[in-house]
Parts: sequence; structure tokens; C-alpha cells
Amino acid sequence: MTEEKSVAQSLLVVGSIAFDTIRTPYGEAPEVLGGSATYFSVAASFFAPVRLVGVVGEDFPPEYRRVLESRRVDTAGLQVVPGGKTFRWRGSYHGAMNEAKTEDVQLNVFGDFRPAIPEAWRDTSLVFLANGSPVTQAAVLDQVRKPDLVVADTMNLWIDTQRDALLELMRRVDGLVLNDGEARMLSGEHNLIAAAHEIVGLGPKFVVIKKGEHGSVLVCHCGPRVGRIASDLICPLPGYPSLKVFDPTGAGDSFAGGMMGYLASKGQYDFRDLVRAMAYGTVTASFTIEDFSVRRLERLTVEEIEGRLQMYRGMLEF
Amino acid sequence: MTEEKSVAQSLLVVGSIAFDTIRTPYGEAPEVLGGSATYFSVAASFFAPVRLVGVVGEDFPPEYRRVLESRRVDTAGLQVVPGGKTFRWRGSYHGAMNEAKTEDVQLNVFGDFRPAIPEAWRDTSLVFLANGSPVTQAAVLDQVRKPDLVVADTMNLWIDTQRDALLELMRRVDGLVLNDGEARMLSGEHNLIAAAHEIVGLGPKFVVIKKGEHGSVLVCHCGPRVGRIASDLICPLPGYPSLKVFDPTGAGDSFAGGMMGYLASKGQYDFRDLVRAMAYGTVTASFTIEDFSVRRLERLTVEEIEGRLQMYRGMLEF
Repeated sequence: MTEEKSVAQSLLVVGSIAFDTIRTPYGEAPEVLGGSATYFSVAASFFAPVRLVGVVGEDFPPEYRRVLESRRVDTAGLQVVPGGKTFRWRGSYHGAMNEAKTEDVQLNVFGDFRPAIPEAWRDTSLVFLANGSPVTQAAVLDQVRKPDLVVADTMNLWIDTQRDALLELMRRVDGLVLNDGEARMLSGEHNLIAAAHEIVGLGPKFVVIKKGEHGSVLVCHCGPRVGRIASDLICPLPGYPSLKVFDPTGAGDSFAGGMMGYLASKGQYDFRDLVRAMAYGTVTASFTIEDFSVRRLERLTVEEIEGRLQMYRGMLEF
Repeated sequence: MTEEKSVAQSLLVVGSIAFDTIRTPYGEAPEVLGGSATYFSVAASFFAPVRLVGVVGEDFPPEYRRVLESRRVDTAGLQVVPGGKTFRWRGSYHGAMNEAKTEDVQLNVFGDFRPAIPEAWRDTSLVFLANGSPVTQAAVLDQVRKPDLVVADTMNLWIDTQRDALLELMRRVDGLVLNDGEARMLSGEHNLIAAAHEIVGLGPKFVVIKKGEHGSVLVCHCGPRVGRIASDLICPLPGYPSLKVFDPTGAGDSFAGGMMGYLASKGQYDFRDLVRAMAYGTVTASFTIEDFSVRRLERLTVEEIEGRLQMYRGMLEF
């Protein structure tokens, strides 16, 4: 494969930073570093520098900050609330480990999170709005100037409780990333491909539906709308075949981080770029799930990512 | 892609032939042609001639026989039981249509099916044992001489009620094709890749796990066993992205038919051949689900299969 010359674009993420307490069939991890923006940032940092906007309490320890800062994650947008406590999530996985069972949530400082984008970051080229209320996500877009690419994540809660705000947000983003259950809920369609077509009809140029171990599917509206199929490009990718899922927490955010990080490094956002970005996201997430928190990513190298991408690509040649 | 010169090998299938009565959100079809061997044969016939062994009652109409014979399906092994009634299945699909709800089963002549392989067919190169009791499947193997490739399907019922016979059969086959729930049940492993590794440890050289809309995964034991990963080759393929699943009945058998038909046409069974065979199986099945019974396959052309395969291959290039 030949790579065109490219200049890495700036990449901003706004989302949660958390202390996760996790139990899986393989072990337990108390108050480890988690949160959507954390997984996203660390995953994306393998491809491009990342600007992180989030909020933590005074209890956020220096060693967790170092995990971010020792990579290419700029924490100038990290608010520390004096006397505040960091967001806490407690959950467990059972059986096939496809879904987390949430046991406790303490929003703490994240409950009142009002993202403030530092002035120097308002011209960021790529923006990722990690899962959060669509009102908060929109407030981020109000603060940035004409980014090249805006991608948002969302979840059942917002589809259910803030549908109008979400629909309004969807007209302001280029891409939406969400899981299969959420895509069905948002679109009212059982068939995921039909759901994806519905979703690109609501505003975004593309949607990526994450299916956990089953991979992901991209539907990209790339052309004049003639019927609802002809002008849409579709790409399904399988999950990377993992023999052991140690802890699936953060897989989706790592996928998005690898995807957006690759796009930032590439500086181009055509269909083929999106597909390759999904492949990098898939592979990056496949490392995340090999250990608790971002531990596997902390000891991961770019060479390992490239090596696994080559294997993954090789699997799909026939 | 360059194709090596090849000679089509003979392909035998033994399985059920049925009258299906199906209800889906899109319509109803009473007593249409169905059964595992039917779907398999018609799908495989696009790639190679097929030898069909099965049983029907006197009520099996000439027009159903013509569906088979008008293709390259040799029905010399089709037993007609005088005064007997053909196997009947009635089922419906709801919601996401991932699983059939069986409403009625009348085994009729299939309940006493004793496959008899015509003498002229006992040297068949490729044998597919469609879903059936492992005792019946073994009885087929007792009648054929050293086939190059034997692949079997199975189901929950046999894993549950005839596990020992199934384990014995697995030591006599080259490949096993089964769905994800069955693979978990047979292996006791939640993780599908781990399940596949366990299954190839039970005898077959390879296993293909079918995941419905999520595609399939191949695990091939190809080399000396050093640990359980190093020597196993793995390939996950996504499902073909179908906007509308009209009737999923027969998708799995069409997948197997496309796969085995391609292998018969190729006459080689290396890992890469298996992967390409899975891709053909995926694409062939994606047509089956566009209409009831084998109706879509009846009006399908080889050119359409090739066209969709090219699209599918193109999707997976990154």
C-alpha cells in the first residue's frame, strides 16, 4: 500500500473521565482510570496529538494525569473542580461479556460539566463529541470554528430523554458513532443497514454502527439521494478475532479514538479513508480489551498496531 | 485475481427436503420447497454439479422436482416413499428476524430416513452432511470411499441428545459448520474464537461458525499444535449488508452450499480456498434471503453472484 503524504490535523475530544470499578470473570479492578474521553485520547494518541477537554475532581491522582500527558494528550482543557470528586462508575461483566451490568454511577463533577474549549483550540480540525447529553455536545460546537470533521457518539439515555436535542445535533455533525441497540432505537428499524440509512437521512454524512465482537458497519451518504440505497456507500467490517476478552470496557471509545486518530493523521475523509480508519479503530480496540483500563494501551506500540492491522487486512483477502 | 486451472470435483449432499410454511413480517408462504439439502443443492449448483440424497413422500410435486433437476442437481438419490408424506416445517419470524419460531414439525418420511448412497456415487470427492442425527450422518460416511473433503452441519438437538455420537462423527469429518449458539453449546466456551479452537481440538481440521447477519468465522487447524493459537489460522468475514431480509430460512444451508460448491469447482482446500469459499457462501446466502424458499436462487445468475462478490471484496479493501 502506498501512503500519500499527509499532515496531521488537530484533534479535539470532549467527554468523560472516570474512576471505573470493574469486575469480570478474570478479575477485579478498583477505581482504575476510565471514561470515554480517556479511552478515546489514549487510543487516538498513537496516530495524532490529542486535545482533551473534560472534568475531574481534586481526587484525580497525578499518576492518572501522567498516563495522559506521557502520551500525546494535551490536558490544557482538563478542568479540576476544587473540592470536587471525579465521576465514578462501577460495573461487571458476565457470561459472554457482551454487555456491562452497571452497578453504581456517581456523576459527581461530571454532573455539572460545562465544557470550556480553550481559545487556542477553537480552530481544531477534527472534533469528537464523546457520549454526553446532546445539549452539552452542542455547547461544544458553539465554541469551535468550522472544523473539517465533527463526529459524535450518543447513547440510549439521550435517544430516550433528549431526542429533539439529539436530532438537532445530528444536523450539525458529519458523522455519528453508536452501537447496534442504539441505532435500532434511534431509527426504529430492526435491520441495521436500514437503520443506518435512516440515520444518515437525519443529517450526518456517515454513521458507524458498532456491534461489539461482531465488528462494525459504515454507511456513508456520498452523493445525491436517489432512493435510499443507490447513493449510499456501505462497508461492514468484522470484529478482530480475540481469543480472550479480558475486559471490554472502553472498546467502543478506543475504536472511535483509533478511527479519529487515523483520520487526523491522514487529513482526508473520503469513504476509503473512513474504512481504513474503522480498521485502525477495530485493531486498536482489540488491544484495549486485553487488560483493565488503558493498561494494554500504555504498553502498546505503533508497531504492534501496524502488525495487527496487517494480519487483519490479510484475513480479509480472498 | 488470477484463477488457476481447475477441474470440478463431484459433490454429494445428504439432508432434508421439506415443505415449509413460513410467516415473516413481509408475507406468508404455504408449503413451499425447503429443507437443508434443497437450499444446499440449489446454492451449490451455481458452482458445480450436485448429487442429492434425500427422502420425500408421494406428495412431492413434479414442479418441486423440476426446480432441482432444471439446475445441475442430480436426483438419482432421491427416495420417494410410496404412500408417505414429505417432511413439513412451519415457522415464523418476528422483530429482528434473527431466529425462527418453530410452530409445527411433522417429520413424516424424514423420521425414518436411512440414506442410501447410489453405488455410482460412492467415490464422490466432496461430501456435505447437512443437519441430521450424527448416527445417520455416520451411516453416510460408512457408504462412501475416501472422499477428499467431508463437512458436516449439526444442531442443538444432537449436541444435547447425541453428544457421544456427534463427538465420534467429528473425528471422521474434515470440517464442521454450525451456528454461534451451537458452537458455544458444543464447546462450553462463551467466546466464539475460543469455542472454535476447542472444536478443532475435537477432530475436524476446520470449523466455520455462522453468525447470521454478523457473518461467519473460520478457524483452521493447519499445522502442528503448539499451544492452541499459534498453529490455527483464523478468518472472520462480515455478513453481506442486506437492507431487507425478506425470509432468512435456508441462509445457513445456502451459505454451506455456496461454500462447498466453490470448493468443488476449485478442487483445492487450502486455507485461502476456504476463505474464498466462505465469501461465495456469504454472497449466495445474501440472495436466498431476498425471497421465500429458493425463489431468488431460481432466477439468480452466476453473473449476479460474481458481481456481488466483487462488491463484497471491494468493501473489505482498506
